[in-house]
Amino acid sequence: MLKVGIVGASGYTGVELARILNSHPLVELTVATSRSFSGRSLADAFPNLKGLVEIVCTDRKIADYAGDADLFFTAVPHQTAMEIVPALLNAGKKVVDLSADFRLADAGVYEQWYQPHTATTLLPEAVYGLPELHRLRIQQARLVANPGCYPTSVILGLAPLLKAGAVDPDTVVADSKSGTSGAGRSAQTATLFCEVADGFRAYKVGEHRHTPEMEQEISKLCGRPVTITFTPHLLPISRGILSTVYASLAPQLTQEKIATLYSEFYKDEPFVRLCKAGSYPATQYVRGSNFCDIGFKIDSRTGRIVILSAIDNLVKGAAGQAVQNMNILCGFPETTGLLTVPLFP
Amino acid sequence: MLKVGIVGASGYTGVELARILNSHPLVELTVATSRSFSGRSLADAFPNLKGLVEIVCTDRKIADYAGDADLFFTAVPHQTAMEIVPALLNAGKKVVDLSADFRLADAGVYEQWYQPHTATTLLPEAVYGLPELHRLRIQQARLVANPGCYPTSVILGLAPLLKAGAVDPDTVVADSKSGTSGAGRSAQTATLFCEVADGFRAYKVGEHRHTPEMEQEISKLCGRPVTITFTPHLLPISRGILSTVYASLAPQLTQEKIATLYSEFYKDEPFVRLCKAGSYPATQYVRGSNFCDIGFKIDSRTGRIVILSAIDNLVKGAAGQAVQNMNILCGFPETTGLLTVPLFP
Amino acid sequence: MLKVGIVGASGYTGVELARILNSHPLVELTVATSRSFSGRSLADAFPNLKGLVEIVCTDRKIADYAGDADLFFTAVPHQTAMEIVPALLNAGKKVVDLSADFRLADAGVYEQWYQPHTATTLLPEAVYGLPELHRLRIQQARLVANPGCYPTSVILGLAPLLKAGAVDPDTVVADSKSGTSGAGRSAQTATLFCEVADGFRAYKVGEHRHTPEMEQEISKLCGRPVTITFTPHLLPISRGILSTVYASLAPQLTQEKIATLYSEFYKDEPFVRLCKAGSYPATQYVRGSNFCDIGFKIDSRTGRIVILSAIDNLVKGAAGQAVQNMNILCGFPETTGLLTVPLFP
Amino acid sequence: MLKVGIVGASGYTGVELARILNSHPLVELTVATSRSFSGRSLADAFPNLKGLVEIVCTDRKIADYAGDADLFFTAVPHQTAMEIVPALLNAGKKVVDLSADFRLADAGVYEQWYQPHTATTLLPEAVYGLPELHRLRIQQARLVANPGCYPTSVILGLAPLLKAGAVDPDTVVADSKSGTSGAGRSAQTATLFCEVADGFRAYKVGEHRHTPEMEQEISKLCGRPVTITFTPHLLPISRGILSTVYASLAPQLTQEKIATLYSEFYKDEPFVRLCKAGSYPATQYVRGSNFCDIGFKIDSRTGRIVILSAIDNLVKGAAGQAVQNMNILCGFPETTGLLTVPLFP
Repeated sequence: MLKVGIVGASGYTGVELARILNSHPLVELTVATSRSFSGRSLADAFPNLKGLVEIVCTDRKIADYAGDADLFFTAVPHQTAMEIVPALLNAGKKVVDLSADFRLADAGVYEQWYQPHTATTLLPEAVYGLPELHRLRIQQARLVANPGCYPTSVILGLAPLLKAGAVDPDTVVADSKSGTSGAGRSAQTATLFCEVADGFRAYKVGEHRHTPEMEQEISKLCGRPVTITFTPHLLPISRGILSTVYASLAPQLTQEKIATLYSEFYKDEPFVRLCKAGSYPATQYVRGSNFCDIGFKIDSRTGRIVILSAIDNLVKGAAGQAVQNMNILCGFPETTGLLTVPLFP
Repeated sequence: MLKVGIVGASGYTGVELARILNSHPLVELTVATSRSFSGRSLADAFPNLKGLVEIVCTDRKIADYAGDADLFFTAVPHQTAMEIVPALLNAGKKVVDLSADFRLADAGVYEQWYQPHTATTLLPEAVYGLPELHRLRIQQARLVANPGCYPTSVILGLAPLLKAGAVDPDTVVADSKSGTSGAGRSAQTATLFCEVADGFRAYKVGEHRHTPEMEQEISKLCGRPVTITFTPHLLPISRGILSTVYASLAPQLTQEKIATLYSEFYKDEPFVRLCKAGSYPATQYVRGSNFCDIGFKIDSRTGRIVILSAIDNLVKGAAGQAVQNMNILCGFPETTGLLTVPLFP
Repeated sequence: MLKVGIVGASGYTGVELARILNSHPLVELTVATSRSFSGRSLADAFPNLKGLVEIVCTDRKIADYAGDADLFFTAVPHQTAMEIVPALLNAGKKVVDLSADFRLADAGVYEQWYQPHTATTLLPEAVYGLPELHRLRIQQARLVANPGCYPTSVILGLAPLLKAGAVDPDTVVADSKSGTSGAGRSAQTATLFCEVADGFRAYKVGEHRHTPEMEQEISKLCGRPVTITFTPHLLPISRGILSTVYASLAPQLTQEKIATLYSEFYKDEPFVRLCKAGSYPATQYVRGSNFCDIGFKIDSRTGRIVILSAIDNLVKGAAGQAVQNMNILCGFPETTGLLTVPLFP
Repeated sequence: MLKVGIVGASGYTGVELARILNSHPLVELTVATSRSFSGRSLADAFPNLKGLVEIVCTDRKIADYAGDADLFFTAVPHQTAMEIVPALLNAGKKVVDLSADFRLADAGVYEQWYQPHTATTLLPEAVYGLPELHRLRIQQARLVANPGCYPTSVILGLAPLLKAGAVDPDTVVADSKSGTSGAGRSAQTATLFCEVADGFRAYKVGEHRHTPEMEQEISKLCGRPVTITFTPHLLPISRGILSTVYASLAPQLTQEKIATLYSEFYKDEPFVRLCKAGSYPATQYVRGSNFCDIGFKIDSRTGRIVILSAIDNLVKGAAGQAVQNMNILCGFPETTGLLTVPLFP
């Protein structure tokens, strides 16, 4: 049994890690840190865990808990992560970091969108943990930068097309809609039930920090720098992201040819499910699962393709993908603990 | 007091007309037709109306009820409308039709997206009832074709930019999200609570029938034929549409210049509210009202503009706009009965 | 035009007062106090008000704004109200207080459930503002204590039965379910969207502070002290309370006799709507309105009656009832500004 | 591997069975019948199953599929079940029936609440499948009548108290609230999204068919006939039941003594979780799981106890409990395939 720890266990992502790891047959959760619930059972704060997850939260120093596990998930805010991760690596641990701190290979880009980076020496070895694109590098990594939720949905939707040169990357527009759990569990007026329920809005239009992350991966796929337009929206649901992505299609490409591109690209991927022609993904069909469902439609009247990509932002967009990365890192079968049927309705 | 009738009173749009007309000081509701509730009080079927709206539904023939009102709202499905409207006009009545049957001036385009048109002789005189664009023609009309909900939000969001040549119309992508009331009140599995709640999906991608309606008005504004890409989505809310519209911006246009374009274009419009820089509309802020709230953001990194436009699909997207059209048609002050504060939360 | 002020304008109740007062033809809103939005337009914080409500929030001292209005709504937390209300009364103003501070005539009871009372001299003149029970006293009051939301629904549901001795008051159980707006707009984890959505729970079981308020009014109706069991629950909706009330029925009482009791008791009440036999109220049919809808069913197998009572907690349960009280206080027709059709769906 | 079949696979309960069985290591799903999806993959109709559940729906006659499995779950409406179950038993199969047809031991009571019973000879051997009360009989049964969702929550909440004589059974009032999936997946206006969302109502007050089922089990526990008052309500959520149950408490019983009663009664039960004093269950903490969470509060002011009991209506209230019954019937460890962490948020 691999001993694993969760640093930042009492946010939605931390609790989701605890949920998923609980049914993972090859790991044991031995550390859960939380400032706000220190000394309390994690299941006291999150009664869904009751009777299954027994761990007590701690607020000890890194040096005091690092020895208790072999691999750590760091589910803390950006900037906090870059303080913790180096110490864990120095202690000889493997780390799957769920923050943004190690996702951008270029520290300059990071600093332009976030704040100064204090652990730049780790950037060269950090691997962007999207297994469908970077599986081999993940296998050998000490530090995996788990992708953002929006980028996971957008990049997986676009990758086969970009790789094949089927779309003009300069025309990419990503219109994404996310459930509210993506905003975290800290108390704030903007995510109160009454502010979100029965409503819908865009936010951080043209300036969301997941933009450079998408552009980094899209640029890699295209072999040249690409900028895209990205608009996030807030859905009155707890879990789920649907990204609707637009791009101009190269000539002569039919529904069938594109379908083949996708099925070839993802033919060995256990967590990508492709929709049949005429059907599209929905967030409710991936709820609670690590699947990314993808569909598309050619709008022949305008020469564009419309790609639809759905994930559960807390699973494939965070905790589930982190466990998938752990499986790869540790040589476990990649789907271990992750092949559960989405909860519908 | 103007006597008005609602043909098709027991759908969500019909009931919404009854709600709005109830607080309109210059009209009296004298006819409400409904096949399913014939002989029953409309308030029995819709208890929200109880104590205020006293009318009993009828299923009589047109000839039998046409004399009971001076103006009719036809809130029936397309194809049914083109059977009823000619008879009402022949009886000397004014008609605000909420179906799609008289929105497309070109019968050929209509037949391509719908089915054969059997009242083409009325098309030349039907006025597309978007007051912000066609107020003068509405004043003189016998037959107003009340716009679709999606087109209302998209066209109002784009009009000032298209009129000024500020965007490239060939790059327009409209990504719209609608509440479920837009799907109507007939029993179907796809709109059951459990199918919609806590979920999100696109539908009719690239083939929704509101597309030609948008293109007709956009083409008029541009002075040449334009095709656009339009994707509707289903929100787990009852009321509200938010359209996120993308287009390439002409050079040299700043946030301030665009803001001026909008404020000039809509300076006398009582139902268009413009958001300040950095703030965006939300469906919950227009709920139950006839407002269209509009905001935008220039994405200077890509040279695009992102326009956000929010309406209540049952009000500005249907019944409210119909009453606004009635006010114009009848020479009432345009805002009569329509200036209520949106219900939030 | 009566000049009115809202003390505490930026909570959900304050904003709802602004919404309702905006369509009241006999008043003008001249003061809106708010600590958090001082100096900002109320419509900036609540964009639903944009274009209709123009007032700017102030954080001045009472003495500085008291002169600007003739009647004040105090929409502040309990304990704060008892600091503000005496000063407003001393300045010669009329006050409708929406807090709990003046609802309980017995200071001892108040102090048992809340904290020490520092304005007990005002208790004898404060009138419990449930117009259906205390209209005459409200007409002559300087200070009206606007009832709590739960008590409004429970008391209106029970009053005709208790008054007629039709039920055994010692068997009363009130099981109430409220929308989340009742918890207010301050940032707290427990009312975040993700904590409330798609869920349901009870809270403060057997110890909610609205209990003594119900008991006070029930005891008055019975002519002797009565204690009841009350359980509040949190619904994943923004607005609405449904109370399901149980009591043992006196013998020989039929559905028809009880229906007559209700219709007699409420025959002149503009805001109480009675359901026909076999139909029951629903929160969605009173949304946004000042109505209280009441239905009941005799469970002859057990000798109990089940009473269902629905209100919008922000309207009849708070701001609407406060305006109704203002209308009575000021000699306006009681329904002025309040007869709007509930928003459904 | 045990071969199992689902008769009626395309309702919400059938699909939930498919979901749960998919992660059960000891069974194989070999039959799924559905009239509406005959010949189609079940995963086509319910894309959440895609990639995991491969079965194709059939509409063959019983005789044609009975041989393909050893145990059947009949997830069909009452009355249909009594036509199918005898044939399956005659074919030597074991049956867990999820309808109401075999729950009531007394055919007379059944016929009073439902319609004539045509398989009364099976009633004596049918076992009411609430494992916490009838585990030993379930072990030896051929036919298990899986309990209704409401009765599961109410009976588990009351059983320890009734068994110990701690409450007066004649004072029991059960106020239950259910998610909309309980109403099934057939198209009907009453359960459309817009009719249910952002609302709350009671239905079938005093006449719901789950009443006699509760009374049967409560009467067994009390050793004498008992009638109770039961009110179901419809929650705007997909999954979950919370029952709030009231009863007069015997004297001298403290919070501690009652807590001990519960913990003793349920000490070996893997699916009952008891809440600590002062905390209460919530439907969101059992979502997707087979748990029943129970809490209580003594209302010493009135001498009553308030019991709160939460389940997922599709799991412990239907499919999960059916699998638990299968596990018992077949000698599998009772928790096999059922110990998953509830999905929150």
